[in-house]
Amino acid sequence: MDQLTTTPALYEAYKKRLQEIADIRYATALLQWDQETYMPAGSITTRSRQIATLSELAHARFTESVTGELLTNLLERKDLTEEQRSNLELSQYDYQQQVKLPSGFVRELSETISNSFNHWVEARKNNSFSLFAPWLEKLVTLKRKEAELMGYEHHPYDALLNQYERGCTTELLDQLFSRLKPALAELLAEIKQQPQVENRILKQHFQEDQQWAFSMDLLEKMGYNFHFGRQDKAAHPFTINFSSEDVRITTRVREEDISYMTWSTIHELGHALYELGLPNNQYGLPLGEAASLGIHESQSRLWENNIGRSLAWCTHFFPVLKSYFPQQLEPYGPEDLFRAINKVQPSLIRTEADELTYHFHIIIRYEVEKALVEGSLEVNAVPEFWKQRYQHYLGIDVPDDSNGCLQDVHWSHGSFGYFPTYSLGSIYAAQFYATLVKQVPKFEKLLQEGEFEIVKNWLSDNVYIHGRKYTSEELCRRITGKGIDPEDFMQYARDKYRFIYAYKLEGIIL
Amino acid sequence: MDQLTTTPALYEAYKKRLQEIADIRYATALLQWDQETYMPAGSITTRSRQIATLSELAHARFTESVTGELLTNLLERKDLTEEQRSNLELSQYDYQQQVKLPSGFVRELSETISNSFNHWVEARKNNSFSLFAPWLEKLVTLKRKEAELMGYEHHPYDALLNQYERGCTTELLDQLFSRLKPALAELLAEIKQQPQVENRILKQHFQEDQQWAFSMDLLEKMGYNFHFGRQDKAAHPFTINFSSEDVRITTRVREEDISYMTWSTIHELGHALYELGLPNNQYGLPLGEAASLGIHESQSRLWENNIGRSLAWCTHFFPVLKSYFPQQLEPYGPEDLFRAINKVQPSLIRTEADELTYHFHIIIRYEVEKALVEGSLEVNAVPEFWKQRYQHYLGIDVPDDSNGCLQDVHWSHGSFGYFPTYSLGSIYAAQFYATLVKQVPKFEKLLQEGEFEIVKNWLSDNVYIHGRKYTSEELCRRITGKGIDPEDFMQYARDKYRFIYAYKLEGIIL
Repeated sequence: MDQLTTTPALYEAYKKRLQEIADIRYATALLQWDQETYMPAGSITTRSRQIATLSELAHARFTESVTGELLTNLLERKDLTEEQRSNLELSQYDYQQQVKLPSGFVRELSETISNSFNHWVEARKNNSFSLFAPWLEKLVTLKRKEAELMGYEHHPYDALLNQYERGCTTELLDQLFSRLKPALAELLAEIKQQPQVENRILKQHFQEDQQWAFSMDLLEKMGYNFHFGRQDKAAHPFTINFSSEDVRITTRVREEDISYMTWSTIHELGHALYELGLPNNQYGLPLGEAASLGIHESQSRLWENNIGRSLAWCTHFFPVLKSYFPQQLEPYGPEDLFRAINKVQPSLIRTEADELTYHFHIIIRYEVEKALVEGSLEVNAVPEFWKQRYQHYLGIDVPDDSNGCLQDVHWSHGSFGYFPTYSLGSIYAAQFYATLVKQVPKFEKLLQEGEFEIVKNWLSDNVYIHGRKYTSEELCRRITGKGIDPEDFMQYARDKYRFIYAYKLEGIIL
Repeated sequence: MDQLTTTPALYEAYKKRLQEIADIRYATALLQWDQETYMPAGSITTRSRQIATLSELAHARFTESVTGELLTNLLERKDLTEEQRSNLELSQYDYQQQVKLPSGFVRELSETISNSFNHWVEARKNNSFSLFAPWLEKLVTLKRKEAELMGYEHHPYDALLNQYERGCTTELLDQLFSRLKPALAELLAEIKQQPQVENRILKQHFQEDQQWAFSMDLLEKMGYNFHFGRQDKAAHPFTINFSSEDVRITTRVREEDISYMTWSTIHELGHALYELGLPNNQYGLPLGEAASLGIHESQSRLWENNIGRSLAWCTHFFPVLKSYFPQQLEPYGPEDLFRAINKVQPSLIRTEADELTYHFHIIIRYEVEKALVEGSLEVNAVPEFWKQRYQHYLGIDVPDDSNGCLQDVHWSHGSFGYFPTYSLGSIYAAQFYATLVKQVPKFEKLLQEGEFEIVKNWLSDNVYIHGRKYTSEELCRRITGKGIDPEDFMQYARDKYRFIYAYKLEGIIL
C-alpha cells in the first residue's frame, strides 16, 4: 500500500475490493433465494456446501490484512469527501468486527446452520423437540463462542445483539421492555372488558390464484416496481436483494384466510421498498446498505401495521379486494375489514399475532435466548420454560412444541439476538409514523385516496437515502427529535384499539 | 507442498480445492440461469458484473501456482488409484490450458460478452447488423487473441475448436464435411423428387398451459427425475446444472405449433439425463464432468431425433398427446405425426431445421467462423457471405439479418468453435444409436411400449458413468468399435427418409 498513491486511486481500490466481495455475497444470497423457491429437493446437501464455500470466501476476502491496510491508509488522509469518510469508517468498524471471527469458525457455523435447518424442519414436522435439541445445543455452544470472540462489556448476549443492531444491549432492552410490559398489559386488560370484534370476513374460501393476482395488484398500487423486483411463493415469507436493482419478496397463501397472505405481502413490501430506495451508486459499500435490522423492521412494520392496518387503507383497498372476491365481500364494508384485521387475541404463533400481544412473543424469545447464552437455561429445559412464559404473559397453554418453541426458523439459522429487532422495529415505526403524520398535511385523507407515493417519498428522504450513515439511534433522533421511546407506540396502540373496541365505526375515518 | 504428505491427504487437498472452485462455478451458473428465467430486467448491469467477478475468481483460483504444484507432486506418486490418476491427468491438462489465459483477459472477455449479448438482442430485434457489428468485431479480436494465447499447430481456429472438443481440428472437420456434403445433397435431391409430406397436424392452436402439462408428463415418462431437476420457461431453451443432483432445463412455447416446444424439451432432456447420470461422487472433479460438447450433443440428438422422431416414439406418445389435445388430434394417427415432424425443407432458421438440412446450417457457420478467425473475412462482410452461402447450399434467399446471421446467440456469448459440435453430436448419436439397436434385442418394440429406461440404462453404462475419462474419439471407439464416421448417420438418414418419402406408412412399425 503505497503512501504516494493518490486518494482517488486508493479509494477506487477500496471500492473495487468491496464491490467484488459484494458480488460474492449476492451470489450467495441467490443460492439461498433459489433454495427457498425453486431448487429441486434432491440437491440440498450440495447446495449447503456451495453456500458455505461462498460465505467463507466472502468473509476470508474481507478479512484479508490488505483490507485493513487500505482502510488505515485511507482514513489518515485529509482529502476525503464526507461520503468517502463515512464509507471508510463503517468498513473499518465491519473489518474490526469480522477479523474477530476466524475463517474456520465461519465455515463451521455455516455448515452447522445448514444441518440444523434440516433437523429443525424434521423436528417441527414431527413435533419432536428432541430431534432438534442436539443441534440447538451445538448452535448455542457456537454462539457463546462467537460472543466471546466478538467481545462484550456486560453480558455475552450483548455481543450477539450488537451484530444485528449496533449498540443494542440487554440493558437497553430490559429498560424498554420494563416500560412496555405494564403498559401493554393494561391496554390488553381494557380490551378484554369489551365485546370481541368479529373477523368472519377473513375466514372464507379465497381461491389461491385470485389471491395471487390481488397481491400483485396491491404491490404495484403501493409502489413496488417489478422492473427491479419480483414476488414468488416460499414456505416462509422473506425479502432478499442482490443489489438495490434486484429486490425480491416471497409470500405464501392460505385459501381459508385472506389476511394470511395479504399483510405478509405488505410487510415484505416495506422491507423491499427500503432496499430499492438505498443509494444505487453505493453498490457494495456501507452507504448502500440498510442502517440496521431494527430500522429495516421499522419499514416493514410501518407499511404492514401503521399504513396497512389503518381504516384509511381499508377504505381505499376494500373495493379493490372486492373486485377480486365479489361474492365473499358482498355483505361487508371497509370497517368490517379494518376491525377484523385488528382483532386482539393472545395466541400461540408469533407471525400471526396482533400488534399488541406480538411484543410478548418477542419478550419470551428474548428471555430464552438471554438465558441460553448466559448459561442459566439448559437446552433441554427450553420447552418447559417456553410453556411457563406463555402462561405467564399471555395466559395461554402451549399444547406442543411445534406450536411452541419449534415454531420459528431463526435459531436453526443461527440467528440469536435477532428477535428483539422486531420489537425495536415496531417502536421505531410508531415514532416515524407519528412524525410523518405531523409533517404531511391531510395525510389520512391522502392515504385513503391511495397516495402511497407520499409515504415512500417521505421515507426515502428521511430513511432510505442515508443508507448506513447513521446508527439507528442517530437516525431516530434526526427524524423524530428523540431517541428510541416506546411511548409513541403505546399512544398509537391506545388510540387505535380503544377506538376499535369501544366505538361503532360507521362513517368514521380514522 | 510437502513431499512427505501421504498421497491420500494430498489427494484430499486437491479434491477440496477443485470442489471449492466448482462451488464458485456453479454459483456463477445459477446467476446465469436466474438471468435467463426469473431475474427482473432492471438489474442486468449489476448481474453482468457479478457473473464477471465470479468467473474471474474461479479462473484465478484454479490457475494459482499451488494447483499446478499439487498436481505435479501427486502425479509423481506411484500409489494412485486409476480413478485418481484419471482425475489428476485431466486436471493437469485443464490447468495447462487455463494458465495460458491471464485473469485480466478472462475478465475483459467476460465483460465484453455481457455487453455483446445486450447489443445482439437489440440488433436482432431491430434487424440491424450494424448495432452488433462493433461488438462482433471486439469479440473476433479477443477470440483471435485467445487462439494465440492457447496456441495451435496449423490453424488458429483449431485452438478455439479444441476448447469445446479436445482434439478437434479444421482438418478433421473439413474431412467430415467433405464426406457429408455430397451424401446429404444426393439424399436431398432424391427427396425433392417425391411429393412433400403434410404437417398440418402440428400447425393448429395448442393452448400454452396444456402444452406445458404435456411436456412435464413427457419428461417424467421419458425418465427425468424432478427430485433432481426442473423445467422453466426461457427465451432460448438450454440445460444447466449446479451439480449432478440439480440439473435444470428450459423450454419455450408457440401456441401455433406443437412441435416447437415438444422436440426442444426432448432435446434438453437428453442433455439433462447425461448430467444427471454423471458420477455423483466426483463432484467438481473431471470424472464428474461430461466427455465433451460433441458427446453432450450426441445425447440430446439421440433423444430428440433417433428416439423422439421415430415412428415407435410417435406410436407410443400419440395417445398421450391426444389426451391433452383430443380435438386437434382427432382426425390423425401416429403416422401423421411421424411424417409431419420429419418433413424435410430447406429453411432459414437453424433451430427449426430438419435433421438433414441442419448440417448445412452448421457448415455455413463453420465457414464464417473459420474465415473470421483466420482474417479472410471482415465482420462487415458477414451478412453478404451468409446470404451467398445459404443460396449456395440450401437454395434459399435470406430476407434479412434477423433471420440470417443475427439469429444465433452463440457469437454474442463469445462461443466461436461451438457450432461444429452440433454436427459432431448428430454423427456420434447415429453411431451410438446403431450400436444400441444392435445390442438391445427387440429394441423398437420396447420403444413403442415406452420402455425408455432401457435407453437411459444403456447410455448410463456406455457413456454417463465414464464422465470425462475418455476423449470423444476414445469413447466412440469403445462403444462402436470405430472412430467418428458419418456413414452411420447417412445410413440412418437414408433408411428413415426414403421410407418416409417413398412409402405409405399405415400399419408399419419402423
